[in-house]
Amino acid sequence: MISYKNRKVLITGGLGFIGSNLARALVAQGAEVTLVDSLNPLYGGNIFNIEDIRDKVTVNVNDVRDPFAMSYLLDGKDYLFNLAGQTSHMDSMNDPQTDLDINANAQLSILEACRKVNPTIKIVFASTRQLYGKPDYLPVDEKHPIRPVDVNGINKLAGEWYHLLYNNIYGIRACALRLTNTYGPGMRVKDARQTFLGIWLRLLIEGKPIQIFGDGLQLRDFNYVDDCVNALLIAGASDESNGKVYNLGSFEIIGLKDLAELMAHIESSSNYELVPFPPERKVIDIGDYYSDFNLIKSELGWEPKINLKEGLKRTLEFYKTNRQHYWSD
Amino acid sequence: MISYKNRKVLITGGLGFIGSNLARALVAQGAEVTLVDSLNPLYGGNIFNIEDIRDKVTVNVNDVRDPFAMSYLLDGKDYLFNLAGQTSHMDSMNDPQTDLDINANAQLSILEACRKVNPTIKIVFASTRQLYGKPDYLPVDEKHPIRPVDVNGINKLAGEWYHLLYNNIYGIRACALRLTNTYGPGMRVKDARQTFLGIWLRLLIEGKPIQIFGDGLQLRDFNYVDDCVNALLIAGASDESNGKVYNLGSFEIIGLKDLAELMAHIESSSNYELVPFPPERKVIDIGDYYSDFNLIKSELGWEPKINLKEGLKRTLEFYKTNRQHYWSD
Repeated sequence: MISYKNRKVLITGGLGFIGSNLARALVAQGAEVTLVDSLNPLYGGNIFNIEDIRDKVTVNVNDVRDPFAMSYLLDGKDYLFNLAGQTSHMDSMNDPQTDLDINANAQLSILEACRKVNPTIKIVFASTRQLYGKPDYLPVDEKHPIRPVDVNGINKLAGEWYHLLYNNIYGIRACALRLTNTYGPGMRVKDARQTFLGIWLRLLIEGKPIQIFGDGLQLRDFNYVDDCVNALLIAGASDESNGKVYNLGSFEIIGLKDLAELMAHIESSSNYELVPFPPERKVIDIGDYYSDFNLIKSELGWEPKINLKEGLKRTLEFYKTNRQHYWSD
Repeated sequence: MISYKNRKVLITGGLGFIGSNLARALVAQGAEVTLVDSLNPLYGGNIFNIEDIRDKVTVNVNDVRDPFAMSYLLDGKDYLFNLAGQTSHMDSMNDPQTDLDINANAQLSILEACRKVNPTIKIVFASTRQLYGKPDYLPVDEKHPIRPVDVNGINKLAGEWYHLLYNNIYGIRACALRLTNTYGPGMRVKDARQTFLGIWLRLLIEGKPIQIFGDGLQLRDFNYVDDCVNALLIAGASDESNGKVYNLGSFEIIGLKDLAELMAHIESSSNYELVPFPPERKVIDIGDYYSDFNLIKSELGWEPKINLKEGLKRTLEFYKTNRQHYWSD
């Protein structure tokens, strides 16, 4: 069984959706957890995300682009879960330089800091299935050609490859997980910057119709955040993962219209409507996507445990109780 | 026949090796040519490279990272040959942030400037076979997986993909040529920052032995600069090339020891020695490499014309006459 008891762990993006859930799991195991977050209002950081573990973690608010802060924070840590990133595809097109700064430049700066002050650290980098672009085949495995469809995809790829390169050249142990759509308590729901599912959950709770772009037949896979956190922990604890890239994915593949229906079924008052793709969305739409996650299953023994219905239920419950901390009406 | 007569052309890296040779060809066709170069002493810019066409071109010395200068320079141009770049693999490992700045950040900034002030420009981007890393198979075609082995490769890839993305998303016509080893008059020979062949030529002229790393059996392909310039001109003049990536390559594939012998044969006083790989070189060595260039041959009708012996002869003649402008003893 993996144990992070007494291990020193740094999480970038630690007040964000996945980072805060990961922190909770690490605190439960007795790890010494430090969270870095910029609290940039466009991103996922939200201090309420760690309300229940506030006195059990160290919080350092700074931008990961700050090399001096990062050097100080990385020094002496056993693990880095490197989750900070700009995730919005639209923002990456409207402000490509900032996306480059955070998703590539800052990553290189973090790795350089590790090389100088802490070359024995183990790093798990949160990458994205977005790198694959529009799939040539389904399910998409790690051998699928890389073909980013937006600036975000290109920069995330550079960030991912710096990690693998520093593993290969300098022996700084690092691996990358290519996350698919992740959802659960703590996700950004005030807008679609993290995933469209965030805004859907919000609309559902507000009793407004969900808007689906296109015909609603686009297939997707989803991971409940606890499953994603579990993958991060497993990848961090294994040296088998060093220098490798793994897809996450799900046993359940679902069309967007069916997903909306499932959500409407859980939250009986809701409905949805099909609307045409906004042109700036259409041009970066990738059609159907779902991952082959056999590699992480066979090498590291990970598979998702929480089904979509159960995960959505838990998530809706969380936001019904805590909505005031995530959006204002 | 391609003609750039009276067309307004901007060349970044215009005082460098390939840029200056391209400028000469464009001037001969009656184009209005503007050259941008940083004259950063670590890179390839050398004002002597345009000695013979100095009064037929406009020179603007600035760093491509300067967005205001680039906006001004791009405005009203018909073509951009985007050749400025940090090319040294070792420098990219020692100073990865500068490599990122120039090979990725500045490229994005140039494309943003095109989007704002000149969306109808046609861009040809000089990319590199370095992106392929250690080949899975030979010759390497454009479908070969991308696997950069150094920071330079990752950043050049991001730079290349921004161009393709801006073509696909914004309709800014752009293509990329993945250059292999290019040599000829005007190349940097004072050190190995552009290619090992530069330093070899210098040693040859100085009557010193050429040093070959390893067993000298590593295969490579080479393009004489006139062939490379011709490919750039053809790609720029064609709309078939938009959104595409093409390898350049050669009919002649040669081992490094055989290349040294060929050079020794041309310059009879010379010799060579095999020396062990320096460790920082070994870790980024890619073994044998040569390109499949059938795509550009079939789609754009390009193929190399100058054979290696002839090209090396011309190059040696040039440096024997002009050595004082390229290195000091």
